[in-house]
Amino acid sequence: MVWPGVGGRHRAVAVDPPEPAPAEALVEVELATICGSDLHTVAGRRPGPAPGVLGHETVGRVVAVGSGPAPRDVRGRAVSIGDRVAVGIYAACGDCQRCHRGLPQKCERLFKYGHAALAEAGPLSGGYASHVLVRAGTPLAVVPEDLPGALAAPLGCATATAVAAVSAGGAGARDVTVCGAGLLGLLATAILAGRGAAVTVVDPDPGRRATALLMGARDAVDPAAETPPADLYVELSGAPAAARDAVARTATGGTIVLAGTVSPGAPLDWEAQDLVRGLLTVRGVHNYTPAHLAEAAAWTESAAASLPAGALLGAVHPLDDLDAALADAARSASVRVGVVPGA
Amino acid sequence: MVWPGVGGRHRAVAVDPPEPAPAEALVEVELATICGSDLHTVAGRRPGPAPGVLGHETVGRVVAVGSGPAPRDVRGRAVSIGDRVAVGIYAACGDCQRCHRGLPQKCERLFKYGHAALAEAGPLSGGYASHVLVRAGTPLAVVPEDLPGALAAPLGCATATAVAAVSAGGAGARDVTVCGAGLLGLLATAILAGRGAAVTVVDPDPGRRATALLMGARDAVDPAAETPPADLYVELSGAPAAARDAVARTATGGTIVLAGTVSPGAPLDWEAQDLVRGLLTVRGVHNYTPAHLAEAAAWTESAAASLPAGALLGAVHPLDDLDAALADAARSASVRVGVVPGA
Repeated sequence: MVWPGVGGRHRAVAVDPPEPAPAEALVEVELATICGSDLHTVAGRRPGPAPGVLGHETVGRVVAVGSGPAPRDVRGRAVSIGDRVAVGIYAACGDCQRCHRGLPQKCERLFKYGHAALAEAGPLSGGYASHVLVRAGTPLAVVPEDLPGALAAPLGCATATAVAAVSAGGAGARDVTVCGAGLLGLLATAILAGRGAAVTVVDPDPGRRATALLMGARDAVDPAAETPPADLYVELSGAPAAARDAVARTATGGTIVLAGTVSPGAPLDWEAQDLVRGLLTVRGVHNYTPAHLAEAAAWTESAAASLPAGALLGAVHPLDDLDAALADAARSASVRVGVVPGA
Repeated sequence: MVWPGVGGRHRAVAVDPPEPAPAEALVEVELATICGSDLHTVAGRRPGPAPGVLGHETVGRVVAVGSGPAPRDVRGRAVSIGDRVAVGIYAACGDCQRCHRGLPQKCERLFKYGHAALAEAGPLSGGYASHVLVRAGTPLAVVPEDLPGALAAPLGCATATAVAAVSAGGAGARDVTVCGAGLLGLLATAILAGRGAAVTVVDPDPGRRATALLMGARDAVDPAAETPPADLYVELSGAPAAARDAVARTATGGTIVLAGTVSPGAPLDWEAQDLVRGLLTVRGVHNYTPAHLAEAAAWTESAAASLPAGALLGAVHPLDDLDAALADAARSASVRVGVVPGA
């Protein structure tokens, strides 16, 4: 489904099935969930590839692999035809200075699914398609057949990023504040609550606050409320005030993780001495490494039975109705809306 | 030497030698160096204890210890009469929540040498005195007789704080920018250069830049100059621009350590997305833990032969001339000026 640009309607294009090159895989999409960043793109609040194929939270089945050694998933498993896989959001070259420094998400030749121009990347470059051609250097996670799609599709974006954000916060935080009860905040809450942290979630939406309690939060409050001094403050909302208020809401010696803000217009307005005298640590997190996706897959599998998957996914639309699905996602109270090819 | 407050002259007061309580020690001061923070205090730019005894960079000799088990220094050595010791800047209770969380420098019952009111702390509470009564919970470092006073006196303030700042930056940084070529910046430079980092020092003063090169910096530049993207940016100057510019001067995935700013008026004015997209880490550092003083003492002993101790200490004045010494320190190009009791 090719997105023509802001204000345009998606149109279906027919594609001959490609032959995967060595280390590539062709994945038939089972379910793609609609990440908030795509809503920003189609609304023109964020630059996007036009024309291009959007979508980057995808679970599907491997239907072809290139010749040569089988691709490996993030847990080291050989990827074979028939495997059910969650597809990562990027492909990294593995060979540049940033890849060597452990920052594949900042690869000098980075490719991002659902963020590429059609003319350069071809049509099987995003999740809103019948198939995705998975490139060499893409983090993939083989997932069990019984893992709900609502948990499997977001693995390669929201879940792995939530894991990266939580990991940046270090171990052992007891009093945690999570800002934003979108999917990232909800998943971060579940991970941290599962480790025994007392999590306070901050979100203006009462429905999302209720979901946060289902995910294990001890408390869920409006942004106007005070919060207990946090050992760990995780900003996943993107709201400028949530980043700005981080210092005041964090305890001496605490850690602030900023992962929600990827657009300009969120000045932090912090006093340097508050960071110094407060012995604060601030960690910016953007996307994730393959190790984070591996941890995300392992955690999701172990936690799946206790997670309210149904509360995370609202309507699932046929891919042909992608514009309607995007409109639904934009106005819906659901954490995620999905699209399914051929439905 | 009691400081009466801003604009007043120090006056000597006679004190009967106290009997140290258990876990206390009485230290006869050999040399106290004048830290920049005392210059801020006497100039009224920073609140200070008045009347009170200033001074908190002190080396001296133990002349009495309390009954009971001998105090231990930060390397676990029993402290005995006759030992030469560098005195830490604080005493922590060891028993409050912050002490238990590894933040003794933020102890809920923190005592800071040279920062206490005479009425509460008595006259032997700062380094500008013939003796300091060292309280239980004070980080002390026993130092060898042949360690130059210029390196031994600052151990408990500048050197331990420089070690804390460098430690917060993690291991393995190759391209480092150090902001400020005061004593902290110079020591941080020497530590990092000794580990093989390429250190660029930023300071407006040409004389201090020259000293930075003696300490092992690869380059030393004016703040108006561009600097190579830093894996690690260490802010030790306290200049608002140096903190503000940190993000622009730091490479993707890099770490910014803020340790220089302890007064209001240094708004950071950073965009949240620059921290997020840049995968930056920011660490506020204030003072240090006993482990940092232990590392500082070990490093100073091992590096002493190669450090230009003479370039770090200018004039040494008699303690009786403390006002003249402070005036000298305020206008002098020397990194440190000293005072010596009974000289």
